This record gives sequence, C-alpha cells and structure tokens, in this order.
Amino acid sequence: MPVSTTTISLKSKGEGDMIDITHQVADTIKNGKIENGIVTIFVSGSTAAVTTIEYEPGLKKDFPAMLDRVAPKNIEYEHDNTWHDGNGHSHVRASLIGPSLTVPFNDKRLMLGTWQQIVLVETDTRPRERSIILQMIGE
Amino acid sequence: MPVSTTTISLKSKGEGDMIDITHQVADTIKNGKIENGIVTIFVSGSTAAVTTIEYEPGLKKDFPAMLDRVAPKNIEYEHDNTWHDGNGHSHVRASLIGPSLTVPFNDKRLMLGTWQQIVLVETDTRPRERSIILQMIGE
Amino acid sequence: MPVSTTTISLKSKGEGDMIDITHQVADTIKNGKIENGIVTIFVSGSTAAVTTIEYEPGLKKDFPAMLDRVAPKNIEYEHDNTWHDGNGHSHVRASLIGPSLTVPFNDKRLMLGTWQQIVLVETDTRPRERSIILQMIGE
Repeated sequence: MPVSTTTISLKSKGEGDMIDITHQVADTIKNGKIENGIVTIFVSGSTAAVTTIEYEPGLKKDFPAMLDRVAPKNIEYEHDNTWHDGNGHSHVRASLIGPSLTVPFNDKRLMLGTWQQIVLVETDTRPRERSIILQMIGE
Repeated sequence: MPVSTTTISLKSKGEGDMIDITHQVADTIKNGKIENGIVTIFVSGSTAAVTTIEYEPGLKKDFPAMLDRVAPKNIEYEHDNTWHDGNGHSHVRASLIGPSLTVPFNDKRLMLGTWQQIVLVETDTRPRERSIILQMIGE
Repeated sequence: MPVSTTTISLKSKGEGDMIDITHQVADTIKNGKIENGIVTIFVSGSTAAVTTIEYEPGLKKDFPAMLDRVAPKNIEYEHDNTWHDGNGHSHVRASLIGPSLTVPFNDKRLMLGTWQQIVLVETDTRPRERSIILQMIGE
C-alpha cells in the first residue's frame, strides 16, 4: 500500500507554545508498512505552523521572540478591526512559517539531523486542540 | 495512474496581491483519478510564493504589511544596484515564504482547516502572468 | 521503482553562504529512472535551510541581510545563555526558512522558473559539512 494517513491530536498551551511531535511521527512510520518514502506533516488550521528546530528550552523562547519582532502583537491589524478576535498577528505568523513540512525516510527511519526535531508551533492567543495530518507515501 | 500534473495560469495585480487558488486545487483533485495522496503546489518564478491563510480582506493587507517590515522597499538592495529593476525586496520576500506547499488529500478532499485557504502571494512590483504547477501523487 | 534516494554532500563557507544545488538535483533526476513526480530536498541539521532564489551576487547579500534584520546576531538568545555556542540566531533563522522544499518534475525535468535556482542557505556561524537528501517519488 503506497499511501497511509494518520492524524495526531494534541492540545497546545497557546501563543508561543512549541510541541515536539518527532516521536509520534517516527512511531507512525515504524508501525506502518511503507519502508522508503516521504511523510508530509500538515496542520489543518490557519493559526499554527510546522517546522524543525533543535528542541531545547532556550530556542523555545528564542523562536517565538523572533515572531514577536516580525509580527508584533501591539500594532494594528486589519483582521482585528473586522473580527475583533485579537489574533491578526497569529494568522500572519502562521502563514509566514507555513503549515506543511515534508521529511524523507529510509528503512522506516526519519532522515533528520541528530539535533533536529519536528515541532508544531502554536501562534493562536489561546490553548487550542490541534489536528496534525501525517501522510506517508512510498514503497 | 499514480502521478498527475496540471498547471493553473492566472494574472496577479502586482505587489501584495494574494489570490485564493483553493477552488482550482480542489476541483483538479475532484476531477482526477487519485483518491488519496498529496498535492504539491509549486509556483515557478522567483518573485512569487505559496502558503495558506484565512482568506479575508483584513489579512490580505496584514500579511503584505509584515513583508514590508522584514524586507522594506525603501532600503538598499545589491540586486537593484546591479539590475536596476527595483524588485530586490520582491525576491527576498518570495524566498522567505517559499515557492512550494504540500497538502494531503483523502477521498479526493483536501485536508485543510475550515478557514484555511491556499494562496498565491505576488511579491513582484508589477502585474504578472503566473503558472502554478499542481502535482498529485497517490493511489 | 517509485522511490529513489540520494544524498548530496557539500561544504559551506559559514554564515550567510548560499550554495546553488540546482545542477546536482537536475542531474540526479536525469540519471534516475523516475520520469514524472516530485523531488523533496531536505537538509538534515538545525542550522541550515533550503529555498529557491534567483542566484546572482546581489541577492546572495540581500537575503542574508534580511535574516540579520529578523534574527540579529547582537541581541540576547536564551540558547546562547545555556549552550554558549553563539549560534542562537542561526537556529532561529533556519527554522523560519525551513529545511525542506518539494519541486515537481516532468519528463525528468525540474519545473522551475528560468531564473529560479534551488539553494542551500547556511545559517551557522562556521563552515559546515552538509548532507542534503534528495528523495524522488513518482512513476
């Protein structure tokens, strides 16, 4: 079977939360039937994103601090003027990082660097239930 | 047939234009033969990009406003010093967002969030004809 | 054979170096057996990234200059306070751009724009040996 889909559900703590999902992705591949291929990690939703990072406490602060610089909370957003939900900056940040990541695997092992983890980045202002789709394609 | 390729052609209005292409992507999958898999949305060109966003009038201004902060028009670019086409900032913005997006689909339906649309982001200074490649892979 | 994996090894010159890998990617596809599909270009490591750009000397300075604005070297990073390796900004920059890029190809030809090249972006402070994984999937 060349295509396999799984959904990970998790709960974030709100703005700036970064959650390491490497183990869930690795386990899904290990327990699947596809030996070699790619896994697409996709977060459905417009105020969260996916990337890789060295997952350690310092960078968990440094990466959101960069997002604060490029899309600060305390400036005016047209989105908020219309919808009044106060998360215009959250949308801008999520669209910049992007919702999808594609990682190759061989012999059922993710080809990540030693200090490279797959993370969900929560950009919304409040805790959210998140669905992350894992789609494996290969042989 | 496990691979299928289509090209969408459209015309942008120039810098800061964001065009919702979700319906074209969804229709291409619906009318195709692949039930489950991924679609890669790729813009050929170096002054445009692809991402997802909640497509509403406020964010159509807020996202380009963020790009103005990280790569302003009114600073010096080495690209412009050489080529004098005045779009150094356009290139920098496009490379930051990136030209490709990969979205999973199941039962011929894109696995997007409810308020999550696929958009072309035009960063060039003038209206452009754009070709966006959709490549579906799956079963 | 629907999946094929190759690794490119190269040496960067350190922070801000951008290396055009388009020819290696194109040659790998040309010499392979897959006619139509996608290639995922993935850099393993947490202080490098992959994107596309018009590869010319001006933009090789302009793109790193943008990274200097969004994640400057001369501000405090929690990562550096803990690990003292002085590359907190390198991690933040790499995670923002992202480690993976997916490009479609048809008839063994990459579907890039005329002035659109695939580049490795080195964000670490010192020269590094880099492994870039190319995973082709298709028919």
